[in-house]
Amino acid sequence: MPELRRDPVTSRWVIISTDRQHRPNDFQFERAATTGREQCPFCPGHEDMTPPEVLAYRPGGSAANTPGWDVRVVPNKFPALQIEGTLDREGDGMFDRMNGVGAHEVIIETPDHDRPLAAMSEIEIERVLWACRERMIDLKRDSRLRYVLVFKNHGAAAGATLDHPHAQLIALPIVPDFVREEIDGARRHFEITERCIFCDIVHQELRDGRRVIQENAEVVAIAPYAPRFAFETWLLPKRHGARFEETPRHECQSLARLLKAVLQRLNRALETPAFNFVLHTSPISEDVADAYHWHVEITPKLTRVAGFEWGTGFYINPTPPEEAAKVLRAVRL
Amino acid sequence: MPELRRDPVTSRWVIISTDRQHRPNDFQFERAATTGREQCPFCPGHEDMTPPEVLAYRPGGSAANTPGWDVRVVPNKFPALQIEGTLDREGDGMFDRMNGVGAHEVIIETPDHDRPLAAMSEIEIERVLWACRERMIDLKRDSRLRYVLVFKNHGAAAGATLDHPHAQLIALPIVPDFVREEIDGARRHFEITERCIFCDIVHQELRDGRRVIQENAEVVAIAPYAPRFAFETWLLPKRHGARFEETPRHECQSLARLLKAVLQRLNRALETPAFNFVLHTSPISEDVADAYHWHVEITPKLTRVAGFEWGTGFYINPTPPEEAAKVLRAVRL
Repeated sequence: MPELRRDPVTSRWVIISTDRQHRPNDFQFERAATTGREQCPFCPGHEDMTPPEVLAYRPGGSAANTPGWDVRVVPNKFPALQIEGTLDREGDGMFDRMNGVGAHEVIIETPDHDRPLAAMSEIEIERVLWACRERMIDLKRDSRLRYVLVFKNHGAAAGATLDHPHAQLIALPIVPDFVREEIDGARRHFEITERCIFCDIVHQELRDGRRVIQENAEVVAIAPYAPRFAFETWLLPKRHGARFEETPRHECQSLARLLKAVLQRLNRALETPAFNFVLHTSPISEDVADAYHWHVEITPKLTRVAGFEWGTGFYINPTPPEEAAKVLRAVRL
Repeated sequence: MPELRRDPVTSRWVIISTDRQHRPNDFQFERAATTGREQCPFCPGHEDMTPPEVLAYRPGGSAANTPGWDVRVVPNKFPALQIEGTLDREGDGMFDRMNGVGAHEVIIETPDHDRPLAAMSEIEIERVLWACRERMIDLKRDSRLRYVLVFKNHGAAAGATLDHPHAQLIALPIVPDFVREEIDGARRHFEITERCIFCDIVHQELRDGRRVIQENAEVVAIAPYAPRFAFETWLLPKRHGARFEETPRHECQSLARLLKAVLQRLNRALETPAFNFVLHTSPISEDVADAYHWHVEITPKLTRVAGFEWGTGFYINPTPPEEAAKVLRAVRL
């Protein structure tokens, strides 16, 4: 069973896979060969290559685990966490560990092997977001879990091992470090000001304009003031909301519309880069309704220079966000 | 001039280069072509291809910026920070920024283009460490600076853009986030126990043995309990010490000896992986002499799987540290 371990100094939790046996030559570059449609486990007709689906949108009413779906959610065949078992927390001297109880699911975004998110229609993108929302609501009911992490790796440079468009969802019995930091910061700001810090950022950025990439009635895309990576892009709802899974339908529509436009801008300005997409939302287990504000962070993988940060945890960004926003705004859609 | 900016939510500082003009096609994969000896700016005889040296060990007493050196330290030709200028701190609405005042130096580890650290003699490695120590002592005198970050990217996959063996040093007017987290955690532990948490880790690991890779009289190499990356390796002095630059000569010798052995073990077990090396030491500006403990963190770059973490800031490690330590211990040197 996988295991969650906490670093005693930084309190950072990591998942350690302990169930697979590795030999030394397994350690080198375990990159999956790029799979064509014939071997693709996410293509229609190959439903038996994945574990049975936990959710699917089937407009024609076809049977589960057969073709005819628009979006399909299945458990990951090689899960980082397992849904069965009890959540035993235990100490080992000064160290803390617990069983790797959780869920690891794949959101297959489209039946079309070659149709990346940026090429989908706004309605198709909205369906993908809605499927994430539905899965979050379902997993929240499991009292062992504290956080649902939704993310997407697009392109091999961003860590994707399969080409077929898909996102991932990991439900965790801990709150990941990067969310913890944001929540701590947001709480400090709320204690002093009684305002949400992300709402303040949205207001200041809209007034200032230099880092705004695009907006619609409900969502705004900005280059953040202190971005870790070149062309890092955040999408934030203008209306305050701590939990993505409580987003109303029309806001999801606006997010889908803006997400498509932003991905197209990134593709045209940067020649279709690999990117990571991470949904930042409230933990299941904590009430931060006033202080926290869900948002999406997109980080293109552009330069080898980034290698520096992976080791040091310290960021040098060669592109000022004002310049990135200007380049992206100038793209003609 | 480069700029330091603070993210208002997480308080994370990043360096933004604002002085270079980029056009969109500059953004893609700015990988330097691998340079042979002929064009290598770090090879002897090419001293005029770098800014004038700030330190060099010249056993034969040759003139500065000519051949005849064993180790040579020069300012980075494309610095992330600049040593000239005043440190203006200012707000911009809710945002914080300051001028990118600091130093960015390259430690050329050897005159030999093809002699990586693992292949150097223990005395040669010790000289490199001693050069870092000397530069840290010198830079500490600049009251504008708060931290000296020493690191090394080995191999293109770890972000290296030049093959000739070299490390880097960045002196900063802020304390990087990853050190801040460690210091906060170490302080919490000290407040409760009046002990250094790293000393506790060293004692527990030596008693337990499962995660010990190798030790000598003064330094121990372990696979940490909650490693972010497969085969992540820490080297810690057994004697408590907060500041690397105060390390006595014999401890530096022991570190060099263990470092060579650990790099050889990683090379043989993992087929000469790319890796990052980061020295974690106390900030210049803070007294954490009792609570903090300098150490070295080495993270091999093994799997594309790591792509996941770059985006999410959350870590899944496929190799338990007990297994990594066992594999590395079993290497015959």
